[in-house]
Amino acid sequence: MKIALDAMGGDFGPSYTVPGAIMALREYPHIERLFLVGDTPQIEADLKKHGCNSGKIDIVHATQVVDMSDKAWSAVRRKKDSSISRAVDVVKRGDADAVVSAGHTGAAVAASMIKLRTLPGIDRPGIAAILPTETNVFVLVDAGANIDARAEHLLQYAFMGSVYSRHVLHYKNPTVGLISLGEEDVKGNELTKEVFKMLKRSSLNFVGNIEGRHLFEDPVEVVVCDGFVGNVILKTCESIAVAIFKWLKNELKRTPIRKAGAFLAKDAFLEIKDKTNYEEYGGSPLLGVNGICIIAHGASTPLAIKNAIRVAAESIEQQVNPHIVEEIRRYHETTASLEPAAALG
Amino acid sequence: MKIALDAMGGDFGPSYTVPGAIMALREYPHIERLFLVGDTPQIEADLKKHGCNSGKIDIVHATQVVDMSDKAWSAVRRKKDSSISRAVDVVKRGDADAVVSAGHTGAAVAASMIKLRTLPGIDRPGIAAILPTETNVFVLVDAGANIDARAEHLLQYAFMGSVYSRHVLHYKNPTVGLISLGEEDVKGNELTKEVFKMLKRSSLNFVGNIEGRHLFEDPVEVVVCDGFVGNVILKTCESIAVAIFKWLKNELKRTPIRKAGAFLAKDAFLEIKDKTNYEEYGGSPLLGVNGICIIAHGASTPLAIKNAIRVAAESIEQQVNPHIVEEIRRYHETTASLEPAAALG
Repeated sequence: MKIALDAMGGDFGPSYTVPGAIMALREYPHIERLFLVGDTPQIEADLKKHGCNSGKIDIVHATQVVDMSDKAWSAVRRKKDSSISRAVDVVKRGDADAVVSAGHTGAAVAASMIKLRTLPGIDRPGIAAILPTETNVFVLVDAGANIDARAEHLLQYAFMGSVYSRHVLHYKNPTVGLISLGEEDVKGNELTKEVFKMLKRSSLNFVGNIEGRHLFEDPVEVVVCDGFVGNVILKTCESIAVAIFKWLKNELKRTPIRKAGAFLAKDAFLEIKDKTNYEEYGGSPLLGVNGICIIAHGASTPLAIKNAIRVAAESIEQQVNPHIVEEIRRYHETTASLEPAAALG
Repeated sequence: MKIALDAMGGDFGPSYTVPGAIMALREYPHIERLFLVGDTPQIEADLKKHGCNSGKIDIVHATQVVDMSDKAWSAVRRKKDSSISRAVDVVKRGDADAVVSAGHTGAAVAASMIKLRTLPGIDRPGIAAILPTETNVFVLVDAGANIDARAEHLLQYAFMGSVYSRHVLHYKNPTVGLISLGEEDVKGNELTKEVFKMLKRSSLNFVGNIEGRHLFEDPVEVVVCDGFVGNVILKTCESIAVAIFKWLKNELKRTPIRKAGAFLAKDAFLEIKDKTNYEEYGGSPLLGVNGICIIAHGASTPLAIKNAIRVAAESIEQQVNPHIVEEIRRYHETTASLEPAAALG
């Protein structure tokens, strides 16, 4: 399999993405080719620094970088030679199966939509964030690709999240929950009330409205919400996990007895810290585009980049896209036979 | 001061609200009268059980209770004799200064809006949740009163949150942040982009768009968002805090050494647990109604009820409502002199 990496993406550019790429090549021998897209001299310098001369690496030169302050769609249109655009081009012309970027999320989404287009039956792609529960993980779609979402988009997220959950996370018949304000059927805003009805009629394993407490305490396997809400959930989770560990650390340092206790129990803290650490999850697939695009965290370390490449490899191997197309096609057939206007739009 | 308590509200009704009320009367001697609204025999039984015959307590009989599965607005219209409606009535007829309820949030909001109306210049009330930072607390408005919010509502929340922050939490010139997708000015959905412009033009100490990480790691003092997003943030925070402590507890029990460490450090855990425990914060003021309404958590313990009554007393003492009216009036005057159509609607 072949993967393109936006080498300029992320807060630290090639100095982090290049060692991440090298780790991935070492760990996943089934990657035949890794395209590093960006400023050639910088990438070469970082490859040299890490003593890497792997024949599997191809550098694709790009002269521009999308900045965090750029508007997503205009950045893709104006900066034709940006690393993210060029990385998506590698997938578009069929040289790679997937693209990975830790850069401007909106630009990665826009470039994928413009150049790769969406899968048949999908109107808008959604970012599938993978989050930890006590014993496993769950998928939250959309974590921020589509900010002003319509009901049919959320229905499509539910289908795509279920496919990902089944084929990559190996849940048999994944439960699907809709983020709302209270679990009762009648609760929600205009958008969620409409989506609720659509999900109820669908063939998905829909358990109904869910609230925050269903995320971690009593989790469902696929969580559906619009991109604004999903992004807020994701960032709130990160923030509060970091805050709790910081508060705890300060409290543990306050007395010598507490310090001794913390020392004895430190493995326990490390295990929980790992669980809540995004680096372990690596990247979030942008589900619904005709090609595979993995969005990594802006603050990705080399370890996180390596894991994002792993997520790309899994999506290729498990044929996530053909499964999505098949599932949506089947839904269309069923609803078309039931009602004149298919709900998926 | 005089306060009405919806005695049937919360998951455990009078068996929790009555002892909470008794604690409040004991702790806050400046409460002259506490109306317990609900089923008289049940309330009397619980008062007797706790050996309370305080002359400050008045029972107001109500024969109905709003269930969690009821729709908010129709519940207020159909169940005329519900405890929440009757409790709001006590404020409406001027017998009490504030109402406290741990019952159906939507019904408490609807009853307050229908019976008390909003303050001059306010279109929609917003729930102000008080959340912990490392060293203090911040206010998040709206935590779920108004689900399909317009831009001017969010502007009004910013004003009301600032007033509460200044007068009750004693922040001098509270910083205001708008929940969005990224900190850059250009980021957000249609709603937040419009609100951003309004806040920028206002006299508030607006710091711009904020993301999850600004909630706890690098907090602002007033966080503004629509009610759907705010409710999701609140419930996600609760859920992840509970989950992290549960995971940690399980990890700490795994080996005898970890157990010993946990025993030595247990005070540190308790302090962080207290910080993240909603019981300590008690209740969230519903800002913007013409009267004081405090919304307590559905799972409120007697301690949480007592603290919700404390929050009601603070709002009365600090004259939150007159300050809101004054602030909004001043804003209207300024914008009216600048532009023909005042942005506050």
